[in-house]
Amino acid sequence: MPARIACAAALCALAIPAPLPADEGMWLFNALPAERLKARHGFAPSAEWTNRVMRSACRLSSGGSGSFISPDGLVLTNHHVGASVLLKLSTPERNLLKEGFVARTRAEELACPDLEIIALAQIEDVTARVNAAVPAGADAAAAFEARRTAIARIEQESQDATGMKSEVVMLYRGGLYHLYRYARYDEVTLVMAPEEAIAFFGGDRDNFEFPRFDLDICIFRVRKDGVPARIEHYLPIRRAPLAEGELVFVAGHPGSTQRLFTLDHMRFLRDVEMPFRLTELNRREVAMQQFSMRTAENARVARDDLFGVQNSRKAIRGILSGLLDPPVLAAKAAGEAALRARVAADPALGASLDDWDAIARGLEALRGFYGEYQALETGLAFWSRLYGHALTLVRLAAEKEKPNEERLPGYRESDMPTLELKLYSPAPISPALEQAKLAHSLAVFATAFGGEHPLVRTVLAGKSPEARAAELARGTALGGAGARREIAAGGGAAIKASADPMIVLARTVDPYARAVRKRYEDLYQSVERESYGRIASALFAIHGTSVYPDATYTLRLAYGTVKGTTDLGMPVPFATTIGGAFERSDAAGGRDPYELPPRWLAARGRLALQTPFNFICTADIIGGNSGSPVLDRDANVVGVIFDGNLDSLIWDIVYVEDPGRAVAVAAPAILEALAKVYGADALLRELAPGMR
Amino acid sequence: MPARIACAAALCALAIPAPLPADEGMWLFNALPAERLKARHGFAPSAEWTNRVMRSACRLSSGGSGSFISPDGLVLTNHHVGASVLLKLSTPERNLLKEGFVARTRAEELACPDLEIIALAQIEDVTARVNAAVPAGADAAAAFEARRTAIARIEQESQDATGMKSEVVMLYRGGLYHLYRYARYDEVTLVMAPEEAIAFFGGDRDNFEFPRFDLDICIFRVRKDGVPARIEHYLPIRRAPLAEGELVFVAGHPGSTQRLFTLDHMRFLRDVEMPFRLTELNRREVAMQQFSMRTAENARVARDDLFGVQNSRKAIRGILSGLLDPPVLAAKAAGEAALRARVAADPALGASLDDWDAIARGLEALRGFYGEYQALETGLAFWSRLYGHALTLVRLAAEKEKPNEERLPGYRESDMPTLELKLYSPAPISPALEQAKLAHSLAVFATAFGGEHPLVRTVLAGKSPEARAAELARGTALGGAGARREIAAGGGAAIKASADPMIVLARTVDPYARAVRKRYEDLYQSVERESYGRIASALFAIHGTSVYPDATYTLRLAYGTVKGTTDLGMPVPFATTIGGAFERSDAAGGRDPYELPPRWLAARGRLALQTPFNFICTADIIGGNSGSPVLDRDANVVGVIFDGNLDSLIWDIVYVEDPGRAVAVAAPAILEALAKVYGADALLRELAPGMR
Repeated sequence: MPARIACAAALCALAIPAPLPADEGMWLFNALPAERLKARHGFAPSAEWTNRVMRSACRLSSGGSGSFISPDGLVLTNHHVGASVLLKLSTPERNLLKEGFVARTRAEELACPDLEIIALAQIEDVTARVNAAVPAGADAAAAFEARRTAIARIEQESQDATGMKSEVVMLYRGGLYHLYRYARYDEVTLVMAPEEAIAFFGGDRDNFEFPRFDLDICIFRVRKDGVPARIEHYLPIRRAPLAEGELVFVAGHPGSTQRLFTLDHMRFLRDVEMPFRLTELNRREVAMQQFSMRTAENARVARDDLFGVQNSRKAIRGILSGLLDPPVLAAKAAGEAALRARVAADPALGASLDDWDAIARGLEALRGFYGEYQALETGLAFWSRLYGHALTLVRLAAEKEKPNEERLPGYRESDMPTLELKLYSPAPISPALEQAKLAHSLAVFATAFGGEHPLVRTVLAGKSPEARAAELARGTALGGAGARREIAAGGGAAIKASADPMIVLARTVDPYARAVRKRYEDLYQSVERESYGRIASALFAIHGTSVYPDATYTLRLAYGTVKGTTDLGMPVPFATTIGGAFERSDAAGGRDPYELPPRWLAARGRLALQTPFNFICTADIIGGNSGSPVLDRDANVVGVIFDGNLDSLIWDIVYVEDPGRAVAVAAPAILEALAKVYGADALLRELAPGMR
Repeated sequence: MPARIACAAALCALAIPAPLPADEGMWLFNALPAERLKARHGFAPSAEWTNRVMRSACRLSSGGSGSFISPDGLVLTNHHVGASVLLKLSTPERNLLKEGFVARTRAEELACPDLEIIALAQIEDVTARVNAAVPAGADAAAAFEARRTAIARIEQESQDATGMKSEVVMLYRGGLYHLYRYARYDEVTLVMAPEEAIAFFGGDRDNFEFPRFDLDICIFRVRKDGVPARIEHYLPIRRAPLAEGELVFVAGHPGSTQRLFTLDHMRFLRDVEMPFRLTELNRREVAMQQFSMRTAENARVARDDLFGVQNSRKAIRGILSGLLDPPVLAAKAAGEAALRARVAADPALGASLDDWDAIARGLEALRGFYGEYQALETGLAFWSRLYGHALTLVRLAAEKEKPNEERLPGYRESDMPTLELKLYSPAPISPALEQAKLAHSLAVFATAFGGEHPLVRTVLAGKSPEARAAELARGTALGGAGARREIAAGGGAAIKASADPMIVLARTVDPYARAVRKRYEDLYQSVERESYGRIASALFAIHGTSVYPDATYTLRLAYGTVKGTTDLGMPVPFATTIGGAFERSDAAGGRDPYELPPRWLAARGRLALQTPFNFICTADIIGGNSGSPVLDRDANVVGVIFDGNLDSLIWDIVYVEDPGRAVAVAAPAILEALAKVYGADALLRELAPGMR
């Protein structure tokens, strides 16, 4: 893919972000690029438009974006965003991923065990208040701590005052702090999911390819006290197909980009972080394939993990390819040199060349314990939901004994509803899968640290990784939500007294994990935040609001043009049709991964085969945007983002308009399938009032 | 698997190798364990028996063992040993791996492009001569060099005197040096290969599992000047089935074991070498899967690489699991402590505790450049047959200018027939596969060394790994044997003048590769050899010939008992039947990897379903033994080794008799299939005179 990147000149936008390529940007809803939109597309979003789109977009705790599409709480997202929920609702006898699901009535909808959906309602700039909390002359670590305390206080105050889920979001890597207030829904039912064979038609083979033919959608409903929630702001679905050249918008939650990274930081990505992650993903992919191969039931329970691993592996390979393509970093270097020259010449910009050096030093420090941090604090050594629950219980007991503001993020009073929803989830946990994942990760841990490492010896307790994994996965009672509730209720005493092997393990590891977390914060994160904050100030001073912040898994608006592209020089049309899926399946002899579900084969004669199925556009999206609504000028849903093409993978680090594209399911295909394949009449009736 | 290892006591045999478990040992043909065999099995191999078995066993350059089974040169080996040859003989239109092959007449046999088969004819102990070449007081590096020169001289002299391929084999990691003279055949034809679907029935899923049902055989013929070679020593095939409890022998070429390693060396395996190799294998597996997934033709050309990677990955995971199982190293530590105590107490044993320390220091040094050595000298950075050819050409030109004894191993006059057979092979090379493998390995190289590393920059020449791989794979002319011959004929001048991008790359990398090779030899290999040589002397002094050397991919005799085993406590019978394969396929609905070939389905009614198909025995085998004949007391072929069960994977580092087992194709199944499935009448008639 990197070979396909056009020219280095386009990339110079990286550190001196104006002028941006026309359709670049993941914009804050309180700082939309009104002038750019007007100049380029002749469109000026009204305050009403902006508010409605903002409040209609939502985020799902299973990892992705969505939107409200009916006043009675229907939420449209991707099948692959709902997949982990579908797995939790499945049994060996009833595989919802494979078979799909349609609720004919509201009573037939299935209650989701631990899905949380939030929708942004208000934004408030609290930068001044956060920064005022830092005492004059504080070093980076002290400043970090002071800001964290201030943020905890702001969040709790807001939550107490409004009853809304409140979160301070750091933007521009420390340049701004905004308080986001969310409407929160933790009662969610499953309304409709297609079969995986059509949601992920083409499988891993076609992933990140276009043309493709995927009905990658899933429909949920949010409820309050058992009845459908009343939703004020929702988005009507448009029946009319898109034309090439149309302006579209994407309102969603891009996860994380690294476009404002310094050159040294890019090199760290290239030489340390991405290789590290890719290596582990390759290992996990092989481990999950081996596990899945043994029985059909194994394949069923591991499917979501395997998909996630393959998806990430492909994405990271794309990013790494970009980073290894010399023009990419050369452009970054050129842009950075220009910015540094401005900063060096003008102290009033608020930054200094020391800021780049400080980031480099922080990264150098991080390099020394990066593996340890990943293993212990991000859980690489313990790839297990049961261990995750155990660590949450151990930390919950410890953190609850501290004043609210001093607690670890995630353990404050304002975090409790989200934490408890997850911790007490009744979703089944497969002991066989847990054992396999633990055996894998314990072996990775032991080989990374060496068999003589004291913590390895402690963790393995004189056993091989396989034997220890079996003991942990089979011996713990934490598979049951009741047992987790009971331990949580007992607080610190219950943790101390527990003989549950997973609790004992988490209790043993936690001090080491906290120690490396502290090093991470003091030696790297705090330093980075201070310096990036100052560099961001310089950027604002030079460019004003024409710079957008790196993605932070919070709501953003992107815009773009519905437009074909090229693949290795060959033209690629902007849309596919439903008929194309049948043709593709025919050409492959109906074999996996091009096997269409029986319902689709049966509906072939009824379907309008010319209906647009998937389409592409230039909107600036990234992982996390999955499930985002694609909107027209009138804020009608014209599609749902579910993918980017191979050439868009580099967008994590730099947006290059051609030939990268976002890929979406076209709204007409959704309506056509609901009507002709799934006979989802009640659902269609519910959508009808808003439909255009 | 490691959890299944019986008791630590059995493992103590590791460093104090007497008493061994009853059936342990990979014995030299000039030092068979006569007393042990007599005591345990009441069998005394005669000189005639020993000579016939030794001379009937052979080794294939595609990587594995085999045996002569007819006076007209028929060679029996495994399908997976012949697979790379089958690939070379295939085209997009005629896939011999998939379709199988049977020559109805000798004229129909297919000439193999670059297969060499050698058979051991004579053994001579040259230890004294090799050691005498070392000047008194020489340091390790000088001793290493002196021995290497002496070995080159001995080999050349032998070759000149006898005309036979001559090789000095280092045994006991430097304790003994034996000169092996081989009969060599480089004209080989393919006679028979079954379809992959039955040769590898059960696929990666059943690999290293038992019970299994694989006709993993392939039959070649060696020729001289176009006509079948006359073979004096060959092994008759036995028609009668084996009984449980029968004594059997395996004559083959176990590749490499690490049973005599010091404890520090075992830790190096555990903490450095095995994790390094496993990481790369996981990466390669994902890369080859991705490549294979794209088109059927890709899958065809990558099949052999993918199989090799998966096979190694499984084996290394097994070894690593064993190394991470604390009792394994604890037993090693106990055995080593006992040996060290003897050595410390008795200087006359010829070793000292310094020898263990020296090995540890050597490993510590190696750790510092292990990645570089792997990347540049073992070719991890350039996973490509074309690069391999380029480097051979570059080195050939340089080495030819030196006196014979000073050349790199592999480039001496005595090596030329083997080198040329490979270098001038007309076998096709897939540019698409080469490009994918190069892109993979260049990216691994760049990420391992960092994008700023000068050699990375030189190698990538300002391009991304993908772009550079495309340029190299598509731009080189080395895909044609003619081009390679031409460059070789031109010598150093042709190399210097060449603008072929692959030659230019190899020319650039070679000095760096040689430099790291030199460090490897001086800082690690020479030190290791001296010290292991002295430790071996101590072992001989204590144990005499009751110790066998670690495997060196040279001919060994193992013996064992045909015997069932257990799998996680459940009994496993000693043999499967042909009927079992059909039942297994039926149970899986005939789906991949249990899809039987059409010829087998058609023959179902004719086959004697009770015929033994695969069987297991306790013989001590390892990778490299694939294709080895299994023999009864009368030296009749009763089977062909093709696998070990999961519990045998640890045998690389320690032999534990239960529940590990070697797995073989039973001779009766071979005869039954040749007769009833393949109608290979001519072949059966040729075998008939010897058959019993």
